[in-house]
Amino acid sequence: MEYTFSGPVADLKPSAIREILKFTSMPGYIPFAAGNPAPEALPTDTVAKISAEILSTRPIDALQYSVTEGYMPLRTHLKEYMKSKHNVGNENDEIIITSGAQQVMNLATMVLCNRGDTVICENPSFIGSLNAFRAFGVNLVGVDIDADGMNIEKLEETLKLNPNAKFIYTIPTFQNPSGTCMSLPKRRALYELAKKYGVLILEDNPYSDTRFRGEELPTIKSMDTDGIVIYAGTFSKVISPGLRVGFTIAPKEIVQKMVVCKQTSDVHTGIFSQMICHEFMTGYDYEAHLDRNREVYRKKCDLMTGLIDEHLGNYVSYVKPEGGLFIWLELPENADMVDFCKAAVNNKVATVPGTAFTADVNAQSHCFRVNYSTPTDEQIIKGMEILGQTAKEFFK
Amino acid sequence: MEYTFSGPVADLKPSAIREILKFTSMPGYIPFAAGNPAPEALPTDTVAKISAEILSTRPIDALQYSVTEGYMPLRTHLKEYMKSKHNVGNENDEIIITSGAQQVMNLATMVLCNRGDTVICENPSFIGSLNAFRAFGVNLVGVDIDADGMNIEKLEETLKLNPNAKFIYTIPTFQNPSGTCMSLPKRRALYELAKKYGVLILEDNPYSDTRFRGEELPTIKSMDTDGIVIYAGTFSKVISPGLRVGFTIAPKEIVQKMVVCKQTSDVHTGIFSQMICHEFMTGYDYEAHLDRNREVYRKKCDLMTGLIDEHLGNYVSYVKPEGGLFIWLELPENADMVDFCKAAVNNKVATVPGTAFTADVNAQSHCFRVNYSTPTDEQIIKGMEILGQTAKEFFK
Repeated sequence: MEYTFSGPVADLKPSAIREILKFTSMPGYIPFAAGNPAPEALPTDTVAKISAEILSTRPIDALQYSVTEGYMPLRTHLKEYMKSKHNVGNENDEIIITSGAQQVMNLATMVLCNRGDTVICENPSFIGSLNAFRAFGVNLVGVDIDADGMNIEKLEETLKLNPNAKFIYTIPTFQNPSGTCMSLPKRRALYELAKKYGVLILEDNPYSDTRFRGEELPTIKSMDTDGIVIYAGTFSKVISPGLRVGFTIAPKEIVQKMVVCKQTSDVHTGIFSQMICHEFMTGYDYEAHLDRNREVYRKKCDLMTGLIDEHLGNYVSYVKPEGGLFIWLELPENADMVDFCKAAVNNKVATVPGTAFTADVNAQSHCFRVNYSTPTDEQIIKGMEILGQTAKEFFK
Repeated sequence: MEYTFSGPVADLKPSAIREILKFTSMPGYIPFAAGNPAPEALPTDTVAKISAEILSTRPIDALQYSVTEGYMPLRTHLKEYMKSKHNVGNENDEIIITSGAQQVMNLATMVLCNRGDTVICENPSFIGSLNAFRAFGVNLVGVDIDADGMNIEKLEETLKLNPNAKFIYTIPTFQNPSGTCMSLPKRRALYELAKKYGVLILEDNPYSDTRFRGEELPTIKSMDTDGIVIYAGTFSKVISPGLRVGFTIAPKEIVQKMVVCKQTSDVHTGIFSQMICHEFMTGYDYEAHLDRNREVYRKKCDLMTGLIDEHLGNYVSYVKPEGGLFIWLELPENADMVDFCKAAVNNKVATVPGTAFTADVNAQSHCFRVNYSTPTDEQIIKGMEILGQTAKEFFK
């Protein structure tokens, strides 16, 4: 039988990152292309202790069906925690637990966008989110980013040109892939522009709790007195991605529609996983855990940036990250970035070509992304030596 | 701000079942409206043992990101198991793990349907699936069912009238809500009609492993020599719904598109949950577990049907189930079913009005659904006494 697929899906390609991820899980490759939390940052002993406790005292709760909105004790605790720690959420907002932050992207698009509607995003941006938008047939329009976040003049031009834009997608803190942080004035400007043009903001914030240097910046959601920001959070980078527990805090009316769509998507997020996250946050010293992880990432990042300066200093420029998992390396204007990444893979170092992250799938890029959380220290050292050698040959 | 929602979502209502579920989890109500596996059927001790073992020997595997297709050992085992036990899957098929069978409905629709396309379903049918289709703006057309499954003459009429139908959704075994099984001749006829009219079949089979009486019938997927059947399975009714692990076996080309869409929906299904299911199937006596559960359901079903005959025999007719979790009770033609269900809820017994399951949301029904897996034996006894008393007053 010849199969015909829905319009947007017929054109959708598998995420280049996940395809590369498969490839780079092959033994012998140095995994700079990945985006996994550091294995040593995963709190395996605590999760084991918590799991045993849950399954001995509340096994039926953990294994039975639950409500779509999420495990009530986790929702209640997260609501208080996000308000007190990040000033996120107000009386017109509601919180629901999702299957990773990825599901927030999926549900927000499903709820808000008709085919052909415009979504504005940073350019480059996280391919997983961009594909979530593309899967609903939206028109993606990218706004270039500077070292301090989205270019605000270009954003306003884009808003003027796209009166049917439904939301602006942004990762203001440790943006993926660029690693940049949006400055406070730009956060305020972005909020005001969205308000002025009647467009929602989808703020994706998976990395802020990994900050190991510099001052914390307020979330855009913390400025949301007008009910225009949908906030996406996750435990993937701070407890475990394998558990698939994220959340959204957004205006009630939007959340209610997201709940209806989530019912039809997966009924609810794994309840055992939700209980593990709740117990982890409330029964243990969560802040001490975050601090330990920050230290892991600071060391790995410093190791990698030192080696980049040493081996690639003549060939790349980059912004030194203060958190997150990634470094965004820019090659000279005249260099063929894709060829360089291919040469690196031939030398057994996998990176992600910048073209994977462009809003326009046909756009060019001189950048590539490397990750310091997944590889071991030995792999970081060896991989950067190889990348240096690759560059020396490539640019000779 | 005034929010505008996407076309299909603006009209979508929360599932009546889940709304009732919330209501009936209130203490004091007898939960005949639910659809939970019996708590005594949940293998809590085994899951506790397995979890401890996984988290002590392979904690990083359980907590780290994984591939979208699912945990490879589970995929491999399930493929062999489904082939040898149910003759499901051939060389042109592929298997992926999903976040419950619900996600198969979501992904199949996302992959195959444009807004306005027709999906044909049994009438009545499972509201969770119907809402998954509705969320993509499809045109739902119901085909009435007889005691032995979908009315085949009406199906052919419907296929003739809807040349743009994308798939036929069916739950051939212990259909929800009707509890009926499609006969073997009808399964063959449905397959041949789908082939003749070039329409796919989405076969949802969550209940077949609960059969406690009668002969097993071949799945429609077992007849699939033409690559036209998407099969949905799940561990929700046999291990645990809270883990949210289902799967689909379908033609490779369709599965590849489902994988792309799943990436954008939730990246992958909880890996710890997948490992628990795999260990449960391979490290323990899975068939003995299924047999124990069958015995639980047989006893509860027999208890309930005996009491229906005793207390409601004068007022309802029904087909005695041979498996599944539900009994579908039909009131006399002249009775107002919704009023009856309201009277029952006033007497603290929650059932699901048949109108929740109609393909046409405005259609009438004289039936309501009761569930025998969730309530305790005491609740079954008391609830049926109350329903009998309610009927006596209602029909006096």
